[in-house]
Amino acid sequence: MTRPSQAISVAKMRGRSRETLTDRVAIEEPLEIRLGYESGGERRTASVSVTMRTPGHDEDLAVGFLFAESIFRSADELAFVKPCDGDNTVRVELNDGVGVDLERLQRHFYTTSSCGVCGKASLDAIHAQGTKPSTTGAAFPRDVLISIPDKLRASQATFEETGGLHAAAAFDAMGELLIVCEDVGRHNAVDKVVGALLREGRLPAGDLGLMVSGRASFELVQKALVAGMPLLAAVSAPSSLAVDLAREFNVTLVGFLRGDSFNIYTGQERIIE
Amino acid sequence: MTRPSQAISVAKMRGRSRETLTDRVAIEEPLEIRLGYESGGERRTASVSVTMRTPGHDEDLAVGFLFAESIFRSADELAFVKPCDGDNTVRVELNDGVGVDLERLQRHFYTTSSCGVCGKASLDAIHAQGTKPSTTGAAFPRDVLISIPDKLRASQATFEETGGLHAAAAFDAMGELLIVCEDVGRHNAVDKVVGALLREGRLPAGDLGLMVSGRASFELVQKALVAGMPLLAAVSAPSSLAVDLAREFNVTLVGFLRGDSFNIYTGQERIIE
Repeated sequence: MTRPSQAISVAKMRGRSRETLTDRVAIEEPLEIRLGYESGGERRTASVSVTMRTPGHDEDLAVGFLFAESIFRSADELAFVKPCDGDNTVRVELNDGVGVDLERLQRHFYTTSSCGVCGKASLDAIHAQGTKPSTTGAAFPRDVLISIPDKLRASQATFEETGGLHAAAAFDAMGELLIVCEDVGRHNAVDKVVGALLREGRLPAGDLGLMVSGRASFELVQKALVAGMPLLAAVSAPSSLAVDLAREFNVTLVGFLRGDSFNIYTGQERIIE
Repeated sequence: MTRPSQAISVAKMRGRSRETLTDRVAIEEPLEIRLGYESGGERRTASVSVTMRTPGHDEDLAVGFLFAESIFRSADELAFVKPCDGDNTVRVELNDGVGVDLERLQRHFYTTSSCGVCGKASLDAIHAQGTKPSTTGAAFPRDVLISIPDKLRASQATFEETGGLHAAAAFDAMGELLIVCEDVGRHNAVDKVVGALLREGRLPAGDLGLMVSGRASFELVQKALVAGMPLLAAVSAPSSLAVDLAREFNVTLVGFLRGDSFNIYTGQERIIE
């Protein structure tokens, strides 16, 4: 059940006028992700995450999130994914024999420790988690790249309604958008795209680029890496750590992709004339 | 040590031309937050969070984050906050006798449970965590409100350099910006503002509004509530849950604040002529 936006009443102030109208806002609701897995010969269930997201592609989001966090590593390990207990819970079931390390999910972890011992290890863990070297990957013509933002925007039905959604898309070297997903969270939109690719058996996606609205953070480069995608393009600016990670793992990072202009921060060789 | 941006080499593609130049990107680095507290008569230290942030106002960020998560509840409970083990760790020390519930930090929590038992409780917890009814709060003249975005942008030194930072500010009913903070993460920028207010003894801030670049999510309304701020204004769209929470707790929520126009989603009575 997809409900990406809803109607609300809003007072619109324009200069000196105040008018009450009905408008639409993007829906943000919590999604609980439950994981079923085997441990020591028994089937277990864990509630592994509650994330704020826009309904739609929930199964893709759950699968993409767990894959990006390296909770499982290939489509072969996935038994099934399905909605559970209403609209805001998804259950992801892994096959017997898949080793699950739930500690990986401790982003906001808390470990009692003496000050100074765990610090360096904690920061290093962020670098290490879930990253693997990029494959050589496809090359993308310049003209294909500059065509993607308009195609992405044209596919964003809910953004047009609400002005309040991020988008992510997977595209190939011919400029075709394979999957477009929207969400209030940019990282969720990317998880949905990666999850959809995984469920279609399209990972690793060494032939595909990933386009995102807004900015490119460290986390988004990491998600592209996990999906084996050799190129991440963003409408806005990258962060320093996004550039560092892209350079380290040979991902092409493009920013400020607007009109016929863009910046290439790393991996220039994949952008061809 | 504040290093909000750094120089990098970038290939700028403009139409058919490709030129390599030096540009600046916003810095994104992990900050580890360590908490010192007393439990059962002993002093303990816990590493409670690693968050990606832009360096600067790190002490404010750590304090604001822990306050927003209701790890502590007033400035009186804070003993001190200081950098620790280099640039990317901050230590927050609470006074003896402050009851600390680290379970609250489990955003990406994992609890082994039977499917269907914990689900509703998990989702309800998000609503309950750290929210309190807003005070009546100040009223803000329309002309003051529309003056804030330009003032905010003028204060954003690093955004001008990089195009890659969010901003948050606290402002009063006369239109004065008391505090402006920038960060790659909008929630971090807000935590920095709330942390700075707390450290200055300015909370609860029933006389101040909170302005943010970009969108207004559930989480940002929650942070305004915890700080006792009666108004949240955003440059872009709110989400459905942001509107719901603002309505429930009587926070004035303004979106699309641009030029002389804006939308009021909740709490119209606080916007006066």
